[in-house]
Amino acid sequence: MSHVFAAGSWTEAPSNADVFHAWNPATGSPLDGEHPVSPWPQLDEMAAAGAEAAMAAAGTPPNAFGDLLDAFAARLDARRVEIASAAHLETGLPLEPRLMQIEFDRMLTQLRQAATAARDTGPDSWREPRIDSESGIQSDRGPLGGPVLTIGPNNFPLAFHGVSGGDAAAALAAGNPIIAKGHPLHPATGRLLAECAAEAVRDAGVHPATIQFFHHCTPEDGLRLVADPRVAAVGFTGSRSAGLAIKAAADASGTPAFLEMSSLNPVFVLPGALRDGATELAEAWAGSVTLGGGQFCTKPGLLIVIGDDGGAMVDAAVDVLAAAAPGILFSRAGVEALQAGISAVEAAGGRKRCGGGAAEPGFRHQATLLEVDGTTMLERFDDLARELFGPAALVVRARDLSEAASIAARLDGQLTATIHTGTGDHEGWTTLAAHLRPRCGRLLENKMPTGVAVVPSMVHGGPYPATGHPGFTAVGMPTSVNRFSMARCWDGVAEDHRPEWLR
Amino acid sequence: MSHVFAAGSWTEAPSNADVFHAWNPATGSPLDGEHPVSPWPQLDEMAAAGAEAAMAAAGTPPNAFGDLLDAFAARLDARRVEIASAAHLETGLPLEPRLMQIEFDRMLTQLRQAATAARDTGPDSWREPRIDSESGIQSDRGPLGGPVLTIGPNNFPLAFHGVSGGDAAAALAAGNPIIAKGHPLHPATGRLLAECAAEAVRDAGVHPATIQFFHHCTPEDGLRLVADPRVAAVGFTGSRSAGLAIKAAADASGTPAFLEMSSLNPVFVLPGALRDGATELAEAWAGSVTLGGGQFCTKPGLLIVIGDDGGAMVDAAVDVLAAAAPGILFSRAGVEALQAGISAVEAAGGRKRCGGGAAEPGFRHQATLLEVDGTTMLERFDDLARELFGPAALVVRARDLSEAASIAARLDGQLTATIHTGTGDHEGWTTLAAHLRPRCGRLLENKMPTGVAVVPSMVHGGPYPATGHPGFTAVGMPTSVNRFSMARCWDGVAEDHRPEWLR
Repeated sequence: MSHVFAAGSWTEAPSNADVFHAWNPATGSPLDGEHPVSPWPQLDEMAAAGAEAAMAAAGTPPNAFGDLLDAFAARLDARRVEIASAAHLETGLPLEPRLMQIEFDRMLTQLRQAATAARDTGPDSWREPRIDSESGIQSDRGPLGGPVLTIGPNNFPLAFHGVSGGDAAAALAAGNPIIAKGHPLHPATGRLLAECAAEAVRDAGVHPATIQFFHHCTPEDGLRLVADPRVAAVGFTGSRSAGLAIKAAADASGTPAFLEMSSLNPVFVLPGALRDGATELAEAWAGSVTLGGGQFCTKPGLLIVIGDDGGAMVDAAVDVLAAAAPGILFSRAGVEALQAGISAVEAAGGRKRCGGGAAEPGFRHQATLLEVDGTTMLERFDDLARELFGPAALVVRARDLSEAASIAARLDGQLTATIHTGTGDHEGWTTLAAHLRPRCGRLLENKMPTGVAVVPSMVHGGPYPATGHPGFTAVGMPTSVNRFSMARCWDGVAEDHRPEWLR
Repeated sequence: MSHVFAAGSWTEAPSNADVFHAWNPATGSPLDGEHPVSPWPQLDEMAAAGAEAAMAAAGTPPNAFGDLLDAFAARLDARRVEIASAAHLETGLPLEPRLMQIEFDRMLTQLRQAATAARDTGPDSWREPRIDSESGIQSDRGPLGGPVLTIGPNNFPLAFHGVSGGDAAAALAAGNPIIAKGHPLHPATGRLLAECAAEAVRDAGVHPATIQFFHHCTPEDGLRLVADPRVAAVGFTGSRSAGLAIKAAADASGTPAFLEMSSLNPVFVLPGALRDGATELAEAWAGSVTLGGGQFCTKPGLLIVIGDDGGAMVDAAVDVLAAAAPGILFSRAGVEALQAGISAVEAAGGRKRCGGGAAEPGFRHQATLLEVDGTTMLERFDDLARELFGPAALVVRARDLSEAASIAARLDGQLTATIHTGTGDHEGWTTLAAHLRPRCGRLLENKMPTGVAVVPSMVHGGPYPATGHPGFTAVGMPTSVNRFSMARCWDGVAEDHRPEWLR
């Protein structure tokens, strides 16, 4: 039985705890190893230890968290092959270059940038120090005073993992302890990541409960932990249904929650862009749709082509998708959910252009394209505008710019929205951007949205229901740290009672 | 019948609308004038017009909102005596210097600072422009794409008013239209403020629905407006019960809401501070408790004196409070709520040291002090730690620092917390601040919390339930603008498709 890392020790789950095992999605076979579903007393212990760690953290110099994050990155790098291989086995994502290089390096970069952010006490740091000499009032941002519960998704087992991903890096950079939940679809990966975390906690000499880890829990216990007053905030990336349940629990208890939930990532193609290169655009878009089995949160799942020339681009996309190898999904449940989603789109008027079926071995699905005209899209918007998690997408043939704008105006919050203007159709851009700009975190022109650069100017966020709040980003340092910090004012406080950066 | 200002016109409420009137709280007499309770169709019209104004605002240069805010301040200043007199009549707050000078100037300062913020496109502005030349990615903050519903409280009829207060100023500075709700206890004041707003909208030539105003609505219609998808965010200052109802509606619809709700504003007095000047401290604290009828959101309603010398300070405070004239509350309901709160504290073991009774003429209440020992406080914490809105407070006689720290550890989120160290008791500060720092927005040393300076380093905010989110401030420019803005990324977007500050 695998363990959990609670209050500084690897602890057995109680012998009567429920257990689960992982699957190899490429073959559909169960994987060796049983992992515990932590019962409430174990989560309760972690909340108590996390609260102690938060009190201890308040007296810890910024460098300690920097050392922890750097040590964590170094420990992970030393076990790169082992960790990436475990993730490959459990997720079916390509080992090279995706897991071994791209996602692994992204994880290390985020942790190292977070280490820099943790140490930074300068005027441009996430601490936002402000000193008003005249009034004797200072302000900054600081940790939240309790552990942050970090819950990662199935689709980035390293760079978005609860224990080693962007939420963990940001929460630790702000000086908060974390309680990290692993993901039941990649427990061996989580165990290895958490081992590195445990070693880093020891290396840095911080409070032993600064990072805690458990594999899994019941939904009821998970929501109880979200609402527990000792938990200061929650970071979550995952499905809309799980996210909304967490949001309801966090809202009721007044707990700040940063939730990245779902997005259609609409792509609008203006007539000029279609004239300039429909085939190249179709190939780029289809590649973006099928990347990582179509399980990117920024997958461009809704394509709106405008005008009569749209047909040629759709035909070219069908050619590419029909020839694509079936994508590996993370679970059998994922295949079933995708099948149900495709059926729902068809029932609402979506015409199947290619794919549509599950495939074998393991949990695979054909690349699938559905098509509707703009009139049907507007009539059945809520039934058709649904996220299809996997290598599937809906294309809308819009009559003209005005109909495309009506579709844009119906969209709810998105992580990204894209306008292909070709050589820069200004009227088309202006018309669509007026609707799309306030509806998305990231607005793109003449690009595909699946790449999310780790740069300070990235916004990986967006209005509800893409996330729970339009004011934050989950990617980018030091900007993503803000989510897990509070605004603090020091009024008339003696110099030696203030942090060093406010003296 | 007074009107509402909807979609650019002063509009009659329907003849079947319910009406209300205001009271003179100093005399208890009803005031002339009937004001409408706007029915849903009128609110619906404002939401539609506000959405149009938001679309128009996206194409408006930053200077237009700056001009609007400056014009608003100028229009208000020209009617200073008339407006302050109306507020005095409706609230019972002192005309001079409180309303005519202090609060009026605060209102104008906030609007003018907001005008400066609206025009500012520089690197240190609220827009937070970031340009990454290498990746071709830029980011900034921008308006939310819909109107902000601003709901002000009873206790600052000018500087926190829905139409002219800090929330309105911040929302407009970010380029959002507002739908402002007046307060039923000062409708004539609201009408005058809204007249100035309407003139400023015309002066600046912005979309006519950039500022809209209504007096009152039913709670059901108000919550429906909060949850309406056309409303992009909500700003609220008021009671915890109203705030929690708004929070629930906003949370369910995914609408960001910035709620300033309630606070005990605990003040801890260490033994050294008691030795140095118990009488002066008692006078300062009692003055802070009775300021504005004790109806400040930062009123220090919970005093914890530590050690045997605490008795002298409490006795001195009793002397001051027993001699104070009864405070004027805003409403009869306020007097009744205060009486009920005092009774509840007494039932939980609070011993009345002075006051306790309602007074006349009008809606007055005696300055009231209740006392408990630390043991009782810890035993009956939830019953005793309640906000008493009015000139009343609870003092706790804590045995020692350890007992005081136990009380600090039980507190939930506060706007302010104060430690009186006298000449700087380092151990006392460190012990208490460890608990208090993450529990409050503003931490004070050797000061009273009732003054909230309008400076960039102010944080008028704090963890739940003082507000709905620990990351924001309601006072201070440009920092308070952040609440009503969204994070935006521009990825690969052509230079002439980006805002000027991202080129």
